[in-house]
Amino acid sequence: MKFVWYEKDGEKRLGVLHKEESHIISLEELLPMRGFQDLVDFIERYTTEDLNLIRRAMEKDKTQGTPVTKVRILSPIERPRHDIICVGVNYEAHLKESTLGLKDPKLDGPKEPVYFSKRAVRILGTEEPIEGFFSLDEALDYEVELAVLIGKEGRDIPKEKVKEHIFGYTVFNDVSSRTLQKSHIQWYKGKSLDTHSILGPYVLFAEDAAYPPDFTVETRVNGELRQKSSTRLFIHDVDKLISDFSRGITLEPGDIIATGTPSGVGMGFTPPKFLKSGDLVECSISGIGILRNKVR
Amino acid sequence: MKFVWYEKDGEKRLGVLHKEESHIISLEELLPMRGFQDLVDFIERYTTEDLNLIRRAMEKDKTQGTPVTKVRILSPIERPRHDIICVGVNYEAHLKESTLGLKDPKLDGPKEPVYFSKRAVRILGTEEPIEGFFSLDEALDYEVELAVLIGKEGRDIPKEKVKEHIFGYTVFNDVSSRTLQKSHIQWYKGKSLDTHSILGPYVLFAEDAAYPPDFTVETRVNGELRQKSSTRLFIHDVDKLISDFSRGITLEPGDIIATGTPSGVGMGFTPPKFLKSGDLVECSISGIGILRNKVR
Repeated sequence: MKFVWYEKDGEKRLGVLHKEESHIISLEELLPMRGFQDLVDFIERYTTEDLNLIRRAMEKDKTQGTPVTKVRILSPIERPRHDIICVGVNYEAHLKESTLGLKDPKLDGPKEPVYFSKRAVRILGTEEPIEGFFSLDEALDYEVELAVLIGKEGRDIPKEKVKEHIFGYTVFNDVSSRTLQKSHIQWYKGKSLDTHSILGPYVLFAEDAAYPPDFTVETRVNGELRQKSSTRLFIHDVDKLISDFSRGITLEPGDIIATGTPSGVGMGFTPPKFLKSGDLVECSISGIGILRNKVR
Repeated sequence: MKFVWYEKDGEKRLGVLHKEESHIISLEELLPMRGFQDLVDFIERYTTEDLNLIRRAMEKDKTQGTPVTKVRILSPIERPRHDIICVGVNYEAHLKESTLGLKDPKLDGPKEPVYFSKRAVRILGTEEPIEGFFSLDEALDYEVELAVLIGKEGRDIPKEKVKEHIFGYTVFNDVSSRTLQKSHIQWYKGKSLDTHSILGPYVLFAEDAAYPPDFTVETRVNGELRQKSSTRLFIHDVDKLISDFSRGITLEPGDIIATGTPSGVGMGFTPPKFLKSGDLVECSISGIGILRNKVR
């Protein structure tokens, strides 16, 4: 089951993909009495009965839905309730390139996960332009990541219960301004420029995914393969990340946790391959979808 | 003019202090047709006419209002739209104690401001208990800071326009867990434990304050003076902080910017004076108010 937040006839709507993935079933039409406002509202209120009705509709004639090509796909969550929770250096090879690229020897071999946050006044969806801000920082970079959406509130979540707190998975492009990331010491500013958080296109329902997550994550820039890895290679797995981060911190439905990027970011090449105006960045995760964004 | 968010008869309300500061004037009663929901709503919609009516009411018989002692004062913003934007090491003497305390030589003499964020599912007000989380981290610390509330949306705000974007000032206690702050390299986790953001008690309207801000900030623990400094001693002043942070990042009404703490935090003493269960922390700013919170 894949959820989608989309715009049709000037209105934003919540839907699910038909099983053939060419059409969208509107949840407003399918479950009119439930009045779901957006994905976070759905996450907070859905019932087993809702899921059963959705699963049945996914099997029916697809032409009852709207073709995916006729709508504008938006970020599944456009205004998050909290800043996006990000995990730094969670793949070995990226840890090495970051230690060099950010000139921070402390990064090498951290025993604990590195967490930082990313502010977004609006999270972009696929096909929306990334603003370069090149006068501010020429070192514009991409980072494909598996994003985990929290489904159930919790604090001090034990490892063996983490799975129950996950609603689904989607793709995140953690666009980064490397000079700012370094010069302000803490990464927050260099990670938080407008248009530098991209999410979607679909949210894969956790029940329909393997656990622990087993996805191939990939980035192409103008067609050239830059990043390719598997979430099986996480240094800290999802059980560890969510149980550890939630120690003393309440996680809420709709919280977005970006689990870190593999090696192959622009900063990791010699010379670096930073993004330029006109570049097409494609971040994809097997079984979820592709984020396609051009740099403006 | 000082704004206050408070609870009376089980309902949360927005008010202003009468000029003698012993009574609260309810904005629901004073401006019933305006329907202000909370402080952020007021910040977005207030008019000069509203301000005139408030100023007139502040001069009238105070007993038409509610005594401050009869209500529960809450954080002026309980659920911020974004994580709290924080400035690290913005006073010289605190820069020195942090470089030693956090064992991070990179901090010494940063040319650019250090920004990080603080997640809060609920910001505490005065008189609410701080949870110690001592099993997670024994190095619990206080940090008094001047918080600036943004009044007007803006990006790339030039220094000379910063003043126009400020709605008001209040007191912030940036409660910090020093071991977590260090062990996760980025500070976010050690800054974001539940109950570790405290704001209030009142918001001083910017028009009624000097510019640049000229406040004495102070912390006492169990009556002992620990921090005392002046916002005139900022390394980066408010013009610099807001113009710099807003480069490429949109600031929104109600955004909270904590401007950094002076020396005298618990980590800065030899041996350190961290907070213990039962301690009373009082963070105050001249002309704004005092946050009084006990550690549980």
